[in-house]
Amino acid sequence: MPDAKTPWGGRFEKTPAKFLAEFGNSLPVDRRMWAEDIRGSIAHARMLGKQGVIGQADAEAIEAGLSAIYREIKAGTFEWNLADEDVHMAIERVLTERIGPAGARLHTGRSRNDQVATDARLYAKRAVAELATGVLALRRTLVSLAEEHLGVVMPGYTHLQKAQPVLFSHHLLAYSWMLARDLTRLRHAHEAADVLPLGSAALAGTTYPLDREYVAARLGFSAVSENSMDAVSDRDFLLDLTYAAAVCQTHLSRLAEEIILWSTEEFGFVTLDDEFSTGSSIMPQKKNPDFAELVRGKTGRVLGDLQALLVTLKGLPLAYNKDMQEDKEPAFDAIDTLSMSLRAMDGMLGTMRVNAEKMRAAAQGGFMAATDIADYLVGKGMPFREAHEVVGRLVLACEREGRSLQELSAADFAEHASEFGADVVDAVDIDRLVARRTTVGGTGHEAVRAQLASANDALAADAAWVEGLGQ
Amino acid sequence: MPDAKTPWGGRFEKTPAKFLAEFGNSLPVDRRMWAEDIRGSIAHARMLGKQGVIGQADAEAIEAGLSAIYREIKAGTFEWNLADEDVHMAIERVLTERIGPAGARLHTGRSRNDQVATDARLYAKRAVAELATGVLALRRTLVSLAEEHLGVVMPGYTHLQKAQPVLFSHHLLAYSWMLARDLTRLRHAHEAADVLPLGSAALAGTTYPLDREYVAARLGFSAVSENSMDAVSDRDFLLDLTYAAAVCQTHLSRLAEEIILWSTEEFGFVTLDDEFSTGSSIMPQKKNPDFAELVRGKTGRVLGDLQALLVTLKGLPLAYNKDMQEDKEPAFDAIDTLSMSLRAMDGMLGTMRVNAEKMRAAAQGGFMAATDIADYLVGKGMPFREAHEVVGRLVLACEREGRSLQELSAADFAEHASEFGADVVDAVDIDRLVARRTTVGGTGHEAVRAQLASANDALAADAAWVEGLGQ
Amino acid sequence: MPDAKTPWGGRFEKTPAKFLAEFGNSLPVDRRMWAEDIRGSIAHARMLGKQGVIGQADAEAIEAGLSAIYREIKAGTFEWNLADEDVHMAIERVLTERIGPAGARLHTGRSRNDQVATDARLYAKRAVAELATGVLALRRTLVSLAEEHLGVVMPGYTHLQKAQPVLFSHHLLAYSWMLARDLTRLRHAHEAADVLPLGSAALAGTTYPLDREYVAARLGFSAVSENSMDAVSDRDFLLDLTYAAAVCQTHLSRLAEEIILWSTEEFGFVTLDDEFSTGSSIMPQKKNPDFAELVRGKTGRVLGDLQALLVTLKGLPLAYNKDMQEDKEPAFDAIDTLSMSLRAMDGMLGTMRVNAEKMRAAAQGGFMAATDIADYLVGKGMPFREAHEVVGRLVLACEREGRSLQELSAADFAEHASEFGADVVDAVDIDRLVARRTTVGGTGHEAVRAQLASANDALAADAAWVEGLGQ
Amino acid sequence: MPDAKTPWGGRFEKTPAKFLAEFGNSLPVDRRMWAEDIRGSIAHARMLGKQGVIGQADAEAIEAGLSAIYREIKAGTFEWNLADEDVHMAIERVLTERIGPAGARLHTGRSRNDQVATDARLYAKRAVAELATGVLALRRTLVSLAEEHLGVVMPGYTHLQKAQPVLFSHHLLAYSWMLARDLTRLRHAHEAADVLPLGSAALAGTTYPLDREYVAARLGFSAVSENSMDAVSDRDFLLDLTYAAAVCQTHLSRLAEEIILWSTEEFGFVTLDDEFSTGSSIMPQKKNPDFAELVRGKTGRVLGDLQALLVTLKGLPLAYNKDMQEDKEPAFDAIDTLSMSLRAMDGMLGTMRVNAEKMRAAAQGGFMAATDIADYLVGKGMPFREAHEVVGRLVLACEREGRSLQELSAADFAEHASEFGADVVDAVDIDRLVARRTTVGGTGHEAVRAQLASANDALAADAAWVEGLGQ
Repeated sequence: MPDAKTPWGGRFEKTPAKFLAEFGNSLPVDRRMWAEDIRGSIAHARMLGKQGVIGQADAEAIEAGLSAIYREIKAGTFEWNLADEDVHMAIERVLTERIGPAGARLHTGRSRNDQVATDARLYAKRAVAELATGVLALRRTLVSLAEEHLGVVMPGYTHLQKAQPVLFSHHLLAYSWMLARDLTRLRHAHEAADVLPLGSAALAGTTYPLDREYVAARLGFSAVSENSMDAVSDRDFLLDLTYAAAVCQTHLSRLAEEIILWSTEEFGFVTLDDEFSTGSSIMPQKKNPDFAELVRGKTGRVLGDLQALLVTLKGLPLAYNKDMQEDKEPAFDAIDTLSMSLRAMDGMLGTMRVNAEKMRAAAQGGFMAATDIADYLVGKGMPFREAHEVVGRLVLACEREGRSLQELSAADFAEHASEFGADVVDAVDIDRLVARRTTVGGTGHEAVRAQLASANDALAADAAWVEGLGQ
Repeated sequence: MPDAKTPWGGRFEKTPAKFLAEFGNSLPVDRRMWAEDIRGSIAHARMLGKQGVIGQADAEAIEAGLSAIYREIKAGTFEWNLADEDVHMAIERVLTERIGPAGARLHTGRSRNDQVATDARLYAKRAVAELATGVLALRRTLVSLAEEHLGVVMPGYTHLQKAQPVLFSHHLLAYSWMLARDLTRLRHAHEAADVLPLGSAALAGTTYPLDREYVAARLGFSAVSENSMDAVSDRDFLLDLTYAAAVCQTHLSRLAEEIILWSTEEFGFVTLDDEFSTGSSIMPQKKNPDFAELVRGKTGRVLGDLQALLVTLKGLPLAYNKDMQEDKEPAFDAIDTLSMSLRAMDGMLGTMRVNAEKMRAAAQGGFMAATDIADYLVGKGMPFREAHEVVGRLVLACEREGRSLQELSAADFAEHASEFGADVVDAVDIDRLVARRTTVGGTGHEAVRAQLASANDALAADAAWVEGLGQ
Repeated sequence: MPDAKTPWGGRFEKTPAKFLAEFGNSLPVDRRMWAEDIRGSIAHARMLGKQGVIGQADAEAIEAGLSAIYREIKAGTFEWNLADEDVHMAIERVLTERIGPAGARLHTGRSRNDQVATDARLYAKRAVAELATGVLALRRTLVSLAEEHLGVVMPGYTHLQKAQPVLFSHHLLAYSWMLARDLTRLRHAHEAADVLPLGSAALAGTTYPLDREYVAARLGFSAVSENSMDAVSDRDFLLDLTYAAAVCQTHLSRLAEEIILWSTEEFGFVTLDDEFSTGSSIMPQKKNPDFAELVRGKTGRVLGDLQALLVTLKGLPLAYNKDMQEDKEPAFDAIDTLSMSLRAMDGMLGTMRVNAEKMRAAAQGGFMAATDIADYLVGKGMPFREAHEVVGRLVLACEREGRSLQELSAADFAEHASEFGADVVDAVDIDRLVARRTTVGGTGHEAVRAQLASANDALAADAAWVEGLGQ
Repeated sequence: MPDAKTPWGGRFEKTPAKFLAEFGNSLPVDRRMWAEDIRGSIAHARMLGKQGVIGQADAEAIEAGLSAIYREIKAGTFEWNLADEDVHMAIERVLTERIGPAGARLHTGRSRNDQVATDARLYAKRAVAELATGVLALRRTLVSLAEEHLGVVMPGYTHLQKAQPVLFSHHLLAYSWMLARDLTRLRHAHEAADVLPLGSAALAGTTYPLDREYVAARLGFSAVSENSMDAVSDRDFLLDLTYAAAVCQTHLSRLAEEIILWSTEEFGFVTLDDEFSTGSSIMPQKKNPDFAELVRGKTGRVLGDLQALLVTLKGLPLAYNKDMQEDKEPAFDAIDTLSMSLRAMDGMLGTMRVNAEKMRAAAQGGFMAATDIADYLVGKGMPFREAHEVVGRLVLACEREGRSLQELSAADFAEHASEFGADVVDAVDIDRLVARRTTVGGTGHEAVRAQLASANDALAADAAWVEGLGQ
């Protein structure tokens, strides 16, 4: 005799083997969508009542019953039965036990296929709001730091070799723009999720006179899905969200790498706060940038999550296939990982000590004035490619003699090209080097100030959008 | 003595080991961006002339020289020297050989770091236009087929088990909506690419009085980048494009799977045209859906491309690192693969024969009226969960007796529940089953007709956007 | 004042921010290695006592204390404190609370870096034993089915088109050989794990006179690691294990796909037992191959796990980095997923009903005798490529006329080539078609019988190895 | 009228659409297996002749014709026709054009399905030999460097923070052990490939009396495949090879990261030779570790290759599917990338200048004696956890006062714990710190000398195996 708890017993003489419950049941994973499941069911029940598909009394009993369950879950007093297949059955079973036949009418005109898609979309929209808030917070911290330390000069690197001196603020703002793009991707994920699938039933739509626009409006969806077969098997919105998380986590891995480098004794540009460091169980002197390493290391799992989701969808015919149950765990893992990573990076940056004098000292090295000396020669009429060659040889000579460019006299310069005049010594001054980069987006002080204004404007605009999500 | 061909000889006493050229040179890969490279250089030269950074005569000589090279490459008469490091050097070297010192002035105020980013963004915008055109064409074919075969009933599947009958048109339109979302993702990739990085120089901006807005306008970019360090190391636009391709290819893999299934003797729903089939070198009777299999199989490579790009960027500190040279090959591969896959699917669908009678015959099987019989009982007042149980047992009985639901008399039904009346036999008619699914997005004939109108509207709107890209 | 629970307080003025505990602590994940952690600690303590590094009384107190904890965890009475950083601290903290200073001496001459590597290797070896047992069981079921159904003919497919008839047993045995290779990969993973890292301390070895071979022998390791820096940062053994799982899961996804196809009404080759099927909450007739779909769908997560692990390791300098804490979760997930998938497939195959008559009927279709007719012509002296062409045209003619090859008379054949004689009708008989494929590895009955013997031999040899693991 | 060039024209009225040739033809990719294809065909022809399946004269004509083609391809005079579908047809077509009907008899008793599998396995075995040779060369360089610089002390890092001083040789040898494991994985890939599939025909074996063992012996395979359906659809050997490449490339990415760090001005531990460095087109002073960055960056593509191959195989039913044509490109790309990366790393390490004095100076910093001071206290009877706490506070005090541990007097130590005696100053000496780590695998000089001997033994054993491959 089939177990009464399965919602599809009639045609079966046996229920699934016990050990398969752990394999097939999704309750441990999808339970976190309980609030969305109840919200969706209440909206569905009200609509069924309004349309006369079920009686008004039934609709009210369902709403009251579900509201009570909502309060219990929120309060932590609801008893989950892990033998239930999924969050939908876990809630509906209890509802029906409590309110009787009215509960059994809730599932009219819907299937778990469109129900789970609805829950997941509501959840995805909420997750976007959470992640976008985290992205905004980190951007604010970056922009604040950039404002606070305006004027601090550090080496700019390419290939991790000293290239040209830059403002520390300029370096920080580079990350604020990456994060701004991450917010755009989150916005796209939100738009993708913002379509109601409920009313698609198992795959073909339903024979009941549903009012889908009514449900969409109650649940805050901007549109209803256009095709029921697509609606129950579309997981693009989870892909978009997981992809947005993957790129953002990759961005954070770059920032984390810098924090790790800057915290070394060799660079010494920043000192992490004890609250964002850990020690060693064996080496008493150690102070490790563990959380930056974790952010970097967890990039692997988020990239794995994105691949998992894409691979799962490969080659699936229409419409719903059970494979699709594997959609939530990678998406949830990506959301959780990124959410914590954003908080960790935000706290780490907000509390770290900036060693401006070490940055400045480092900016003197590496022959970083070379480009400007070449530009100086170009100013005297030499084609750039030739100037580059002359300065290359000059650097090679300095390196052999153990001298920096700042230690050369005008006469020393003149030995390498007759175009050099007395004013060349100005060309190698670190502060002037930076100040001269005045083009839009460059590292010159004025350009960075303008960039800060622009970054603040972008922040304000994005913040307004994020606040609108939380309604 | 360093080889004169490297653009950075001065500081070096030796050039890279010969065998490393194949490893480090990107010309075989980035050569395809030649048109973008020349367009970018002409715009840069004009701006340098306009700003007085180089003489007007030099600017004109550069433009004339580059235009000649453009014509030669287009005509296939340009001689590429694979010893050149990349497309930038290959073109600039020849230019300088031809026009002398003026050519050496072209690289003033820019670096290969911002140059390659500019080329790649121009190329990405063009690739979006190409892919979007392919997506549109396939959508048009799907919608046309849906219009042509309106009325053809087939089994709708979940879990690859017969679930409920649907219109073939409804099934096809599901894919048109997937592709509509793909176009949205391509649009996002276009927006991401539509920002000019030129003027960022190596990483810090430049000391020359560049007019970046002028260059952006000439090259058709909507904005200039805000931060030079971000600009030279941002590859988000290639990620967005590769991601869009990965999801679209995954969608195509689903459609390909269906074509493969439908082409089997067992399903027999469609017959592929000989032009889109291949045979066997050993089995004379074989007619294989090779191209659908290739589309499905190539999903692996596009997912691999996306992963390759993300992994490459993981943990890279600012600003440019040589790792980033590995950005183009996966993106190009994803573009090429999707582009051909779209064409193959479009041709395949446009030429296949639809076996409507086999679809209809198949739609009689599988007890697919069961849901409607349950709904019938609900209409008589039975809660849905109970009705489900009753019909489940009815199906089990039929299966044992080898009877279909259509073969049952009203009396047979009545044995299973007293609610059954004479009208139940109407409930199991295939055409009525379909017609009853009238909700928005459902498979009922009227609903599908409305959906077709909506799909055509969406097509027209997207087509207008795509045409706008080609200007 | 630092929290006393961190094992590295002295140099710190603050402990990590509370919200970071969830981010950085690995206890929820690594707790499952508790038995390995305790085994390793007991062996370490005994060795320290034997070597005189700690007093014998201390060594005995440690062993007694750890043994008590072992029993409590096993019995489920141990109280885990989720505030502990990891399984090592969770156990050592309680030990020290109970036995005092002796407990604090356990960590002499080791670090968590080599301790966690030891735990993970012990765990990996155990996981190999578990997975290998699962692989063996499924192979046994496949071979049993092949023995039981010897003689059943079914269509062999390429490109999912009917190609040549094969024995169902031959088809099943193909999977047994895949699984045999999976066992080889698991064996390699076991060999990779079978090296003791303990004694490497944090990264450089230790100053205490440890006897590493003694510890290796007690813990059942075949060798001690050769280089302490490699030993604490080597995760190849987890890669090898996760890779073995990924390939095996991919193999299972292929078998799952076949089960899904065979369970359709269209193929109808097998009927899954109710115990390995599920229904629909809305469609009363549905009986879905959910567990086969899950096995196929979960391939995504295992492929994602492998990528996660590889990506995490990319670009990490020596020696230990915190990123490496992210090694266990993907490996554990791959192990768990494959373990359950093996059980599910084993049960599914062991209980399914084989519809031999449907297979046989299907084997008559698809012009599958075509190759043998071509071979017939080759036997008459026609070059194969020509024979192929003749038979191709014959098939095309049959298809147009709606006739099967079996329906043709010798005269019909002779119209296509003069080489056809009366004996051609024998060439198209399904059973003779199969029987003729007598080459080693072919589908002929004798060849398959020989293959069965070989498969049983391989099973026995592998079973002996697996049993040896369980000592 | 079908194009005569397709090997399966008879049953078709049209050939594939022209634009599909580029999509479906594999010649540009599989052409590199020409030598294997010809070797396989010659062995097959000889066997057919020996067995009397074809006449001896035909067998000889085939061998002579193929040998001529072999010489032409080798000499670069063979004209490839890119309209041919694949390398098999390209060669067989020309053969038949030249020697007539005998050529058409070559394909007797085989299919492209088993032919391509044979080619790929022969190629994979050759690729293993090439990669193993590259791995060996790099290991030799590492071991040589370790021997040459024995005695050079450098900081050992965990979390990129200075941890404990180590011998540079110890650090280098860590990589030699990683590479030794890579060789083991390559060996496993070789074993996986070392099975002959030829004789499986399309999927079911063949009716001709083939002598498969004869062919295996001629081609150097250790065994013949056991199951024809498995044999034509098994790509495990390419997975194993691509996986081995992925792990090795990941190892190289770690070494590359270190080279990049060590080449910075901040670390300064090594100076790359000009032959393994590049410059900047704009910054004359730059000397970049481009090739190390490329090795690190290309890890992405190899990980992508592995994923591509696994994804392609997911969910494919038996036997051959066209998706499998996508197997070679990722495998070839992984082989090529790793092969060049090994050469690049080998050259880079073999030519770099080791700045021993900078390493030594760096080894004085970072309070790296802290662990040994704690061990000193343990020696005086203090439990390790307490000693750790005392030394942690000592480090904190030093850091605040800007003093190193080496600058403290015995009296300074005594202020922190009464256990400190005059002999503590010995405990902080860098050379003694290193020398004390005498356990097997530790960084002490004697232990490293023993390790070197062991590394050389392993090298010799592996070299013997690799040489055996080249016969």
